[in-house]
Amino acid sequence: MELVQAAIAGDRRAIARLITLIESEIKEAPAILAEIYPYTGRAYVIGITGAPGSGKSTLVNQLAKSYCDLGRRVGVIAVDATSPFSGGAILGDRVRMRDLGQYPGVFVRSMASRGNLGGLARTTPAVVKVLDAAGYDLILVETVGTGQLEVEIARTAHTVLVVEMPGTGDEIQSIKAGVLEIADVVVVNKSDRDGAERTAAILEAMLSTRERWAGSGLVYSDHSGALLPRLAKYLGGEKSSMTEETSWRPRVVRTVATRGEGIADLLCAIEQHRQHLLTTREWEERNRLRLLSEIEQVLRRRLMERLLHQVELDHLAEVVNSVLARRLDPYAAAEQLLCG
Amino acid sequence: MELVQAAIAGDRRAIARLITLIESEIKEAPAILAEIYPYTGRAYVIGITGAPGSGKSTLVNQLAKSYCDLGRRVGVIAVDATSPFSGGAILGDRVRMRDLGQYPGVFVRSMASRGNLGGLARTTPAVVKVLDAAGYDLILVETVGTGQLEVEIARTAHTVLVVEMPGTGDEIQSIKAGVLEIADVVVVNKSDRDGAERTAAILEAMLSTRERWAGSGLVYSDHSGALLPRLAKYLGGEKSSMTEETSWRPRVVRTVATRGEGIADLLCAIEQHRQHLLTTREWEERNRLRLLSEIEQVLRRRLMERLLHQVELDHLAEVVNSVLARRLDPYAAAEQLLCG
Repeated sequence: MELVQAAIAGDRRAIARLITLIESEIKEAPAILAEIYPYTGRAYVIGITGAPGSGKSTLVNQLAKSYCDLGRRVGVIAVDATSPFSGGAILGDRVRMRDLGQYPGVFVRSMASRGNLGGLARTTPAVVKVLDAAGYDLILVETVGTGQLEVEIARTAHTVLVVEMPGTGDEIQSIKAGVLEIADVVVVNKSDRDGAERTAAILEAMLSTRERWAGSGLVYSDHSGALLPRLAKYLGGEKSSMTEETSWRPRVVRTVATRGEGIADLLCAIEQHRQHLLTTREWEERNRLRLLSEIEQVLRRRLMERLLHQVELDHLAEVVNSVLARRLDPYAAAEQLLCG
Repeated sequence: MELVQAAIAGDRRAIARLITLIESEIKEAPAILAEIYPYTGRAYVIGITGAPGSGKSTLVNQLAKSYCDLGRRVGVIAVDATSPFSGGAILGDRVRMRDLGQYPGVFVRSMASRGNLGGLARTTPAVVKVLDAAGYDLILVETVGTGQLEVEIARTAHTVLVVEMPGTGDEIQSIKAGVLEIADVVVVNKSDRDGAERTAAILEAMLSTRERWAGSGLVYSDHSGALLPRLAKYLGGEKSSMTEETSWRPRVVRTVATRGEGIADLLCAIEQHRQHLLTTREWEERNRLRLLSEIEQVLRRRLMERLLHQVELDHLAEVVNSVLARRLDPYAAAEQLLCG
């Protein structure tokens, strides 16, 4: 627990070690997080997502440097669904990221999933908390925005940036992948390429007609499960305050990250969104939903652990064999296991 | 239950209605699946995944037609993480798919996720079972192969195809997205483009050095959770039979799906993999792991449902507020809810 205190005091080595402990999900992780938790809640979290090749990492780089120049301390978490083959080595982006780590006010953490993205979705909020408690003002969480889980990681942010490239309607990746609806700000990066203006126009048009979920831009994912919709319903009365006029209309910003163009506009759009959250109920709503989702994840895991302690492996193997032999269907098998 | 019998007899309208019922997760779904289940286990399931734009749908089209020409009945399930905006309408692929539906031996089902991919991952195995019970010999499951969940859907197949396009090392999407490791056959589509040969060579090189997971090509995902690794360990003794020599070395096949080129080679590679599964333990292993994963999903949901029945919403709201106020951390909150 000395380690925790050192991390909170801002010791970089302690922070790095603490994150490693949390990532490896040691038994003491809950105790560590309990100690950290009272120090959290001050950082502003920005999620950055987009298809491979959209230039996310370069953009994150520029954002981090800009915030740093403004005197803010910046934590960067790059969540990377890297193949076990490449180990991230083929991504030159990571190398560039490491340069960023030499800024005194910037802390960079690259998390490679190595085929276990579920684990990442689980530990990323905890890593965010460590950096939050360690006094980083801004935390940038970068994920590859093409799958549901990656999107969920990004969604735990206060402001979500979806990074796009110029392309025709059919080629716009964020539309194809269905991630546009979580965007608070859409960044058309590589805007020096042909078609940038048209891409921005298409995105603007789509965003102006989109429906907002529960007035907060948060989709109740099936993943985060049953608690969220139920509590949201319970708290539903409060939501009606969110009208057309008070709900956020996502901005579209054009950038050329490699040359630093448009970064000032992007910072401005992020700040506008932050102001919006603070002056409406959305700030509290997002915080509540995020915490609820975290609690639910812990619950799911603990429930399963409890069950596994009760079920005999012999019995489990027997049940699975019955299902294999089609004497039992998977639903009935689950019921048998539930009843011991 | 007349509907179930009609579907099993091959009535297309009954099949379509049954799938709709299962997708909407009505209360009777478990009973329906229990009735269907004894009729399943005959179909060969092929998963097709790859980045947007790789030409997956055209390839699936060609495969379906080819199998049809060989006198086989083919079911196609296109899982589409389509944005709520587009509703799939921007994808011309879907239109082409509908043409395919006019072949008497082909049944096409397009499942749009509309922001709820978790639900898709849950219902896709059930939809596969319906088509299996209805007598379709081959079932092609197409997903956008860029996220973990999409990959898990594909992984429930007997043979997994990963579709790639010609590109440089840095551009190979399946490497970037980390999906190469689930491939039994890698298809380099659009092979009339520059660099096809080099792309195939890079992929061959990567595949020749890759490690195999548990000798079966199946990654124990964190998602499918705790049961799998535990039972696999329990059954571990049997696994040692899987040696270097008997394990499958993924094939790389070049195609130009729009012109039907390379489709015969692809059919051949799929058949080789099927033979491999049948002559080794992998066939049974894959079936066992898939069923185990299904049982676990049902268990997780049922456990959460049971808990939700026990927890008072007042109490839940109170706990969440304590966490928001940082009087309680998320782990401690979960423990409180578990103890009633």
